[in-house]
Amino acid sequence: MDKNAPPNSASTVADVAREAGVSKATAARVLGGYGTVSEKVRVAVMAAAEALDYRPNELARSMTTGRSGTIGVIVGDIENPFFSLAVRGITDVARQAGFTVVLVNSSEDARNEEAALRTLLAKRVDGLIVSPAKESETDHLRDAARSGRPLVLLDRGSETLGVDTVVANDRHAAESITRKLIARGHRHIAYLTACDTPDHHFRTPADIHTGSVRRRIEGFFSTCQEAGMTDVEHNIHVGAVTPERTRAIIMAMIEAPLRPTAIIASDSVIALEVFKLCREFAIRIPDDLSLVSFHDADWTSVTTPPVTVIRQPVYQLGETAARLLVRRMKGDVGPPTRTVLETELVERASVSMPDQSSEPPHRG
Amino acid sequence: MDKNAPPNSASTVADVAREAGVSKATAARVLGGYGTVSEKVRVAVMAAAEALDYRPNELARSMTTGRSGTIGVIVGDIENPFFSLAVRGITDVARQAGFTVVLVNSSEDARNEEAALRTLLAKRVDGLIVSPAKESETDHLRDAARSGRPLVLLDRGSETLGVDTVVANDRHAAESITRKLIARGHRHIAYLTACDTPDHHFRTPADIHTGSVRRRIEGFFSTCQEAGMTDVEHNIHVGAVTPERTRAIIMAMIEAPLRPTAIIASDSVIALEVFKLCREFAIRIPDDLSLVSFHDADWTSVTTPPVTVIRQPVYQLGETAARLLVRRMKGDVGPPTRTVLETELVERASVSMPDQSSEPPHRG
Repeated sequence: MDKNAPPNSASTVADVAREAGVSKATAARVLGGYGTVSEKVRVAVMAAAEALDYRPNELARSMTTGRSGTIGVIVGDIENPFFSLAVRGITDVARQAGFTVVLVNSSEDARNEEAALRTLLAKRVDGLIVSPAKESETDHLRDAARSGRPLVLLDRGSETLGVDTVVANDRHAAESITRKLIARGHRHIAYLTACDTPDHHFRTPADIHTGSVRRRIEGFFSTCQEAGMTDVEHNIHVGAVTPERTRAIIMAMIEAPLRPTAIIASDSVIALEVFKLCREFAIRIPDDLSLVSFHDADWTSVTTPPVTVIRQPVYQLGETAARLLVRRMKGDVGPPTRTVLETELVERASVSMPDQSSEPPHRG
Repeated sequence: MDKNAPPNSASTVADVAREAGVSKATAARVLGGYGTVSEKVRVAVMAAAEALDYRPNELARSMTTGRSGTIGVIVGDIENPFFSLAVRGITDVARQAGFTVVLVNSSEDARNEEAALRTLLAKRVDGLIVSPAKESETDHLRDAARSGRPLVLLDRGSETLGVDTVVANDRHAAESITRKLIARGHRHIAYLTACDTPDHHFRTPADIHTGSVRRRIEGFFSTCQEAGMTDVEHNIHVGAVTPERTRAIIMAMIEAPLRPTAIIASDSVIALEVFKLCREFAIRIPDDLSLVSFHDADWTSVTTPPVTVIRQPVYQLGETAARLLVRRMKGDVGPPTRTVLETELVERASVSMPDQSSEPPHRG
């Protein structure tokens, strides 16, 4: 039997070829939509295919049945271990449920995300899991949700979209680590994120359009303010998108009159850059600088010192999103749900009390 | 204009709805192949669509034009930093050329790979980049190559398939690091790979079906033999696919009478496991055990000691494969090419001379 013929179809490419009086290769070319054949041959093959009720391929079948057996996943950056682990959670559940996962990277760009979404919808995925690049630009997600294909948001929510959302308790995690740093005596704590603003400066949490990061910054911001710190916004650094940008931000930070005694890295990619730079400039962690990172990336436990991290339930985020999606694809039409998974602080050895002697005088 | 209507099509979903005398939502359901409508309505809408020569979506258009604007990529394990970096190389080139990259993970399983390939072909990708799980099972790749969709093999070749291939000079890299270890006095060098054999034992390089790894093992094997070492096959350990399996292999290795003085890890995921275990069991790198890894993963430079690695041109492998594919998709019908990119040994601090005093007597 020809590989392209769907299992339930009685007629094969060979049948169509015989009916049309052409070779199997020619029939395959016409039915597959590739290569060149004369218009006369094309018409003859298509007529034969129609007469035999031949379904050329899974794609055509999916147009009829509305099922393609695939889940489309759009994430911001597959190179970030956070996303690759979440995608494994998705894939494990999807495979068990009989779905193939098709993955597209948005590079954290809402325009790319929109294009990816259009591609995946056009390719008739049965459902979608998206980690939205910007919560402020979600019209395309709204359209997708309305198209009737189930959509689940991963790691970043949008209260206004009315779709299933699975996120971690980011705000709480940021509050608790910030409180811990303050309790240890830190008064100058920097928060470093890849998220950016148009002019690369942070003013208020509302400037941050990536939901998970905004919630963390809200937690950091309010905890610092409650502790009586001023000018907290100056300690939040955005746009650490490349090693070069991260480097420039950290260099400026180190050379500033009020050098921070602790850094919270919003993801493990940034934390690794901080770690590398500290080594290069002989800045001792934690003696000269304490470091905490979101995401318990593999490498964080093998460095000297090992890095204190906020362990997010990354695999579970993916797993939960995929389970929800599978349920929706099976016809569950209940109201949209919001699942919030807890995080865990893993204390290693990258946090210490700030060296009071070398700390500049406290402002205000 | 309706989003689903292709730019060159005159008729929209609204036109079809009007012609069929149904609501736009109903027409969209029928044309999109989702939701439920009565057979009568379905027939009316399909007739109207045919009368107006309506093309329901990009997917249907791609069946006619043979172009979907997407490149399908199948890799073994997107969580392995090797593949995520290669995929970035692919994506950067593809995006510039106007293609969306659709990614599927095979989990290094030839059956999954075949299913993924079928899905992607059914979804009418314009071209394919595949890193074959097994060079011994490539019938599905042969079929794909014959289907007329350009196919480029990444990191792992197959001389018999007759398609473009981009690989690193793995054999040469393995030879040169093995020679270096021997020159430093190592006589018991273990090679550790995730590739597996049916009974989890290594006998000859021909047992290894992942091309890149087989070429490395061939280089390791022949260099050890040339140096007069015997029973080299006992020092090649396969099946380090999970942290647990890797752990069991290393434990057995450590407890064996002829404990190796150096380990070559076939990828950075394995090297990280080795590093973690050594820390756990207070095995000092490099004093007690030297460690070399394939792939210059980010973390290898921040550990104590930093790890000596074979830097593969990973991003360039992806980039080159994508460039070749784009050229083929544009109609280049020249003979298949085989591109071999050079590797580089980055010497850090994880290799030393073996401690002669603690080394067991040399066999034979």
